[in-house]
Amino acid sequence: MGEFDLIRRFFQRPAPAGVDVGVGDDCAVLAPTPGQRWLVSSDMLVEGRHFLSTVDPARLGHKALAVNLSDLAACGATPRGFTLALALPRADEAWLAGFAGGLLALADAHGCPLVGGDTTQGPLNLCITVFGEAPAGQALLRSGARVGDEIWVSGTLGDARLALEVFRGSVALDGAGFAAVREAMERPTPRLALGQALRGLATSAIDVSDGLLGDLGHVLAASGVGARLDVDALPRSAVLASQPVALRHLCGLAGGDDYELVFTAPPGARLPDVGVALTRIGVIEAEPGLRVVDGRGEAVAHGLQSFDHFSS
Amino acid sequence: MGEFDLIRRFFQRPAPAGVDVGVGDDCAVLAPTPGQRWLVSSDMLVEGRHFLSTVDPARLGHKALAVNLSDLAACGATPRGFTLALALPRADEAWLAGFAGGLLALADAHGCPLVGGDTTQGPLNLCITVFGEAPAGQALLRSGARVGDEIWVSGTLGDARLALEVFRGSVALDGAGFAAVREAMERPTPRLALGQALRGLATSAIDVSDGLLGDLGHVLAASGVGARLDVDALPRSAVLASQPVALRHLCGLAGGDDYELVFTAPPGARLPDVGVALTRIGVIEAEPGLRVVDGRGEAVAHGLQSFDHFSS
Repeated sequence: MGEFDLIRRFFQRPAPAGVDVGVGDDCAVLAPTPGQRWLVSSDMLVEGRHFLSTVDPARLGHKALAVNLSDLAACGATPRGFTLALALPRADEAWLAGFAGGLLALADAHGCPLVGGDTTQGPLNLCITVFGEAPAGQALLRSGARVGDEIWVSGTLGDARLALEVFRGSVALDGAGFAAVREAMERPTPRLALGQALRGLATSAIDVSDGLLGDLGHVLAASGVGARLDVDALPRSAVLASQPVALRHLCGLAGGDDYELVFTAPPGARLPDVGVALTRIGVIEAEPGLRVVDGRGEAVAHGLQSFDHFSS
Repeated sequence: MGEFDLIRRFFQRPAPAGVDVGVGDDCAVLAPTPGQRWLVSSDMLVEGRHFLSTVDPARLGHKALAVNLSDLAACGATPRGFTLALALPRADEAWLAGFAGGLLALADAHGCPLVGGDTTQGPLNLCITVFGEAPAGQALLRSGARVGDEIWVSGTLGDARLALEVFRGSVALDGAGFAAVREAMERPTPRLALGQALRGLATSAIDVSDGLLGDLGHVLAASGVGARLDVDALPRSAVLASQPVALRHLCGLAGGDDYELVFTAPPGARLPDVGVALTRIGVIEAEPGLRVVDGRGEAVAHGLQSFDHFSS
């Protein structure tokens, strides 16, 4: 199977509405919606770094797109399409069928068609670039948090990291517990409906990809503010809640790979109900820095840092 | 130096006009031009496959963007911006400074700002996604070639492949000759002005990335036509012209990495003068397939195929 057969067989589909030209020309051609801004994000996933070689290809396809859609969600954008560039050691048909299946199922679920890309031979590497739209001036940014805003997070935090610790052999879970946290790690849910519902309501937003401390830190830096964070308020799954405190803190504060949205909103803001739990975890303060406290307001020494690809 | 320092130091710049938000948020936010379509293309470059580990990083930066801009050129688009996803074995400051310098110099030359991306640790891999604009209905596609159209190519073909053969040790050139063809391989020129000038004039276009036979083959397949190609008419550099006929044919017909535009236009079309040579190399015919002939019209048995990442 050659490169072009591979594209045709696994990735090419008829161009949907709003896409003049999809996969198969030098460029895709899309029709922007009048009055909307164009939002773009790109993420690269490398074997051994972002996923294990043993991962089910359908789950990998899901995750590769999910982490990109999560960036659109964090900005409150509506997805319009994506490109996929793929380096593969070899053209393995069963792997490709699984990968494309997981990828395109999530794409279909969010009306985000694959419009182009590239395939080449090389160490396994997936690079997806997503495009979305939001009304001019309404994209959610990291820079809008204001003193007194409350800090909220969707869903639960820490399960993906807990699953990673099981894979690393540092934690043991029973079968049902491991299945649950592995699902969180391998099939994250991009919070697109929530992001769109937060337009005009949240003052800032980011998705938790590198860990809450680091990602919230980006919001604080971009907004020129500080924060107080209640570690006991962090929403956790039942599996994580039953773990020792140090592990709970590690997974919740510095875990990463959660793809939940952290956002700020003025006190009393009427938050949307889109079927995902929202939990208040802290408050924006004028004093720079991020102060982690427990439920009684006492400082927690956690010694944790967020994930950095070149420091850790 | 951590991941975020790296981005700030080498890749972050103030957002230019038309870019609401550039590097540093979850998404870039761009303002589409009313009445224009949005064009997107993505290319991935892998060490050992698309470039040698010894390549000068500034030249690699240039080439990584050039091959993507070439896709915009082939569609007649005006560049608007690009994202860069980069997997690096380590954060080498000298390498990054060189790479960013070559990349951003070409970006500046074409008014195509870096608006976002990703950096991670892994085997060296560069994935760029470019965005451009063209008026609705005017993007140049592969599918518009008509029987009787003439086939044209810009610049010269084959030097990049000739340089590759020197690196492989199968060909020897003198110092000046090697310098010239190496320049073609490492610093290709995206034909953006030509592509834009061909809007409404060329019936189809593609850039020569995998080799003339294969790339022209895509046009023929998409357009449902055949062609006759005069191999003796192919424009060649003086260095390539002095090589044996089999090597001339290999480099000109199947070389790849040229990033010249091949396009079709009706006979007598008034072609634009944008400072790049244009050479007529064949004609579109109704009979399917691609017939390679010499200057006397006699069939040439070349036995060549275009480059395919999973067949060669």
